[in-house]
Amino acid sequence: MSPLLKEIRHNPLLWLLAFVPVVFAAAKLRPDAHTLLFVLSVLAIVPLATLLSHATESVAAKTGDAAGGLLNATLGNLTELVIALTALRAGEYMLVKASIAGAIVTNTLFMLGASFLLGGLKHHVQEFNRVSARMQAGLLFLATVALLIPSAVTTADSATQVAFTQQLSVGLAVLLIVAYALGMLFSLKTHRELFASAEHADEGEAPWPIGLALATLAGVTVLVALVSEIFVESVQQAAETFGMTPAFVGFIVVALVGGAAEMASAFSGARKNRLDLSVGIALGSASQIALFVAPVLVLLSYVIGPAPMSLQLWPGAVVMMLIATLTAALVTNNGRSAWFVGVLVLMVYLVFAMTLYLLPPRVH
Amino acid sequence: MSPLLKEIRHNPLLWLLAFVPVVFAAAKLRPDAHTLLFVLSVLAIVPLATLLSHATESVAAKTGDAAGGLLNATLGNLTELVIALTALRAGEYMLVKASIAGAIVTNTLFMLGASFLLGGLKHHVQEFNRVSARMQAGLLFLATVALLIPSAVTTADSATQVAFTQQLSVGLAVLLIVAYALGMLFSLKTHRELFASAEHADEGEAPWPIGLALATLAGVTVLVALVSEIFVESVQQAAETFGMTPAFVGFIVVALVGGAAEMASAFSGARKNRLDLSVGIALGSASQIALFVAPVLVLLSYVIGPAPMSLQLWPGAVVMMLIATLTAALVTNNGRSAWFVGVLVLMVYLVFAMTLYLLPPRVH
Amino acid sequence: MSPLLKEIRHNPLLWLLAFVPVVFAAAKLRPDAHTLLFVLSVLAIVPLATLLSHATESVAAKTGDAAGGLLNATLGNLTELVIALTALRAGEYMLVKASIAGAIVTNTLFMLGASFLLGGLKHHVQEFNRVSARMQAGLLFLATVALLIPSAVTTADSATQVAFTQQLSVGLAVLLIVAYALGMLFSLKTHRELFASAEHADEGEAPWPIGLALATLAGVTVLVALVSEIFVESVQQAAETFGMTPAFVGFIVVALVGGAAEMASAFSGARKNRLDLSVGIALGSASQIALFVAPVLVLLSYVIGPAPMSLQLWPGAVVMMLIATLTAALVTNNGRSAWFVGVLVLMVYLVFAMTLYLLPPRVH
Repeated sequence: MSPLLKEIRHNPLLWLLAFVPVVFAAAKLRPDAHTLLFVLSVLAIVPLATLLSHATESVAAKTGDAAGGLLNATLGNLTELVIALTALRAGEYMLVKASIAGAIVTNTLFMLGASFLLGGLKHHVQEFNRVSARMQAGLLFLATVALLIPSAVTTADSATQVAFTQQLSVGLAVLLIVAYALGMLFSLKTHRELFASAEHADEGEAPWPIGLALATLAGVTVLVALVSEIFVESVQQAAETFGMTPAFVGFIVVALVGGAAEMASAFSGARKNRLDLSVGIALGSASQIALFVAPVLVLLSYVIGPAPMSLQLWPGAVVMMLIATLTAALVTNNGRSAWFVGVLVLMVYLVFAMTLYLLPPRVH
Repeated sequence: MSPLLKEIRHNPLLWLLAFVPVVFAAAKLRPDAHTLLFVLSVLAIVPLATLLSHATESVAAKTGDAAGGLLNATLGNLTELVIALTALRAGEYMLVKASIAGAIVTNTLFMLGASFLLGGLKHHVQEFNRVSARMQAGLLFLATVALLIPSAVTTADSATQVAFTQQLSVGLAVLLIVAYALGMLFSLKTHRELFASAEHADEGEAPWPIGLALATLAGVTVLVALVSEIFVESVQQAAETFGMTPAFVGFIVVALVGGAAEMASAFSGARKNRLDLSVGIALGSASQIALFVAPVLVLLSYVIGPAPMSLQLWPGAVVMMLIATLTAALVTNNGRSAWFVGVLVLMVYLVFAMTLYLLPPRVH
Repeated sequence: MSPLLKEIRHNPLLWLLAFVPVVFAAAKLRPDAHTLLFVLSVLAIVPLATLLSHATESVAAKTGDAAGGLLNATLGNLTELVIALTALRAGEYMLVKASIAGAIVTNTLFMLGASFLLGGLKHHVQEFNRVSARMQAGLLFLATVALLIPSAVTTADSATQVAFTQQLSVGLAVLLIVAYALGMLFSLKTHRELFASAEHADEGEAPWPIGLALATLAGVTVLVALVSEIFVESVQQAAETFGMTPAFVGFIVVALVGGAAEMASAFSGARKNRLDLSVGIALGSASQIALFVAPVLVLLSYVIGPAPMSLQLWPGAVVMMLIATLTAALVTNNGRSAWFVGVLVLMVYLVFAMTLYLLPPRVH
């Protein structure tokens, strides 16, 4: 336990952990104070995310960056999965779909771009393993194609079309899950050596013991999930108070807070010149949401939802996903980065965010 | 003759050659037994395709892989040309267009993906000449742009639009043929050395004498063409018996059987670690259909068709061609391959095949 | 002055400078002879462009190719800026937008493609600095995304939509200008060393003294701007005499003549095996129009125009810009070129030019 307490004592950010019990108490005592709950839940998620980042790095130090990135993406996306499952049970399929598309776009553009920028401000030119980045970009491309095709071949909204879209969605969901599983077999087993890191920076901190790291990972993930639920319940109304459109909330706000844990890890990796870790988290997380979380939700909608959910998205969301995937493929192509690459990627994200912020509500 | 007979004696697959006379007899005696003729013609095409593959490899062994690939693509696409000419003469322009788009997508995704997968299951990492792959991908990109633009700039179906599309199609057809001819000049003459193979695997079998190889190539191609005609006549009705949509038949079934000869060569090359041959056949065949077969059909429609045929395709087909071209460009970019790259490419193909299989008939 | 006079004496093309006073006199005496003024203004622009090219190369020889390319693009685009400002003041927003999109497409495809072809006909394989090409392609990609998104998310033409598009255009304009400024900071200051040329050909001619070169640059640019105005006033009616559609004139003719100065520099660089200069001019000029000229015009429309101008383009123009950007990204990806690469890029341009030439007027 002592490395954990020592960490908390030395890192002022972790003192925000005090807000975790506060947000639970507030949710119990004043369940309708949405703006208060929104602020408190964000304040509680930040230190939890920081703690998660340290624990993941400790595990990653033992397992290599690619496997560490995968591990981090898996645990980090529990937040998104919990959020989406809550909305699914309530039948709010528009919110589920917006948060899925938003998480993919935010991870691909904001997390990757900010990692490049933060790393680039400290290091002149950074290198990373492009084999790993290419595989994740390839998986993302496949997922984008699978989400694009139902919209591309159908236009009308007749009963035949709905039945066709529903059948197709189940088939595509199974395909995506199979592709995701084969991708893990490839990167963790048959071609593991290709995914080794490009180079390792020297590490200042001693990693935690593996047992403590794993226990912290598990415990903090549960806390993040619980706080996230309070966040989701409050965000929609709090956002309206701040004058944001529903499209902006679903795509940008939920995705940014939902991915806070992974972002802390990715940005810290970039500053430490371990860009493999950052790229692995950003693209790995995006492809996991696209190829695992989204299809699982489609299949689960038959069990726990009020009606089946399809993979058909709002056309604007498909265009944004396609552009995000293309951007990721172009910038990770040569395995090198500098600060301006990060600026370019963030600018694409800003174009999307600005569009969604100004979008008149009915269009969405 | 003796190497040919020896080959037939040792390869059980070639014993299926017995079905060649059977299918001709059946077509004469029972011209309306569509399902029987469909099965028999597929059984006859398979050994002919195998024989073609051996003969082509013998010629390729003398001329280098790139020229061998081009030769193979030229002869292999005779099948597609014969099929399309038959349909053109009958005025079935929807089938002509579907089979062209389907052949391009199937060669680019299925043939390339399966070559990567089959080769990758035997060899850990495979290398190929990316200069050649890039040129074919560039030609395919050009053809896709030419097919996309008429759909992108016009929407209405007025008489002015039809005249415009028709004029534009003739112009684009001439452009594509010129580009194809210049591409051959480049790869076979001025920059021949760039298209040499990355590496050569040792060859187990002694190649046939060039005379026998060329004679077999010619004779078997004629037989493939004749059997293909029986196949085309029977496939539409046989497919309905099996419950397939017309879109699926035109795009997938015709393209798979029509390309069987080239696929046998491509897959055999991939297994023997001569991935240059496989990539050359797959992309070379796709670009030959897009830049030579399709424009020739447009120009010939003025001579032998009941009315002029345009290059305007169903929008869904254009999207699929564009995605197929982008996929080919992305995966052949670095000249290396492993089994998972093949899985990714095949998955994109499966997304298309599944969509077309489930597509309600009227949408197409 | 003597190197300038010596240059004029030895280069017969520069004798066309005699047409500069002639065109000014003709515009004064016969302001309605549009076809005559069109021919005279083109004859006057060609030698001015040649002179500009020599002066720029002299400056570039002192400052390095990347900075020289940027300098050239900045001065060369004064022509486009003057043309667009004239049309903006007159409220002809369709012409402003068509000439912006046309200049981007023409620089990206025609100038780049013809440079590759002209250089490739003289040199077997040419190399260029791909870091620089990638940055320009990245900036162009960002600009294309910014121009694509307003069209992708809105369809209706209600008052709400118009207000949304207008607000979004101002926001996007500011974003693009910031990205352009950061790009200059990156290439000229923080990562200057990455933009050094791949190799230098030996130079036959002694460069001019820097003072003369700068004075020539400034004076000739002013003359080009003045002649361009006469050209713009006459081109629309002269084009109708030659049977061209307005879409073709805005996209192709204005862009080709407006970019003549830069083209002379780019082509001359390619022939001298200084492809860095050519690629820098072509892509640098395209990205400067997209990220600087276009947003400045949107912001200026609030000051000098009769009404605010948005960034929303005709969908066909957006598709062409997107394809042009993708083409540039694909062909500059590996930093090598041969004549056929130029043919492919020019063919894509020909597809666009042919489409616009045949396009029925009302569609545009």
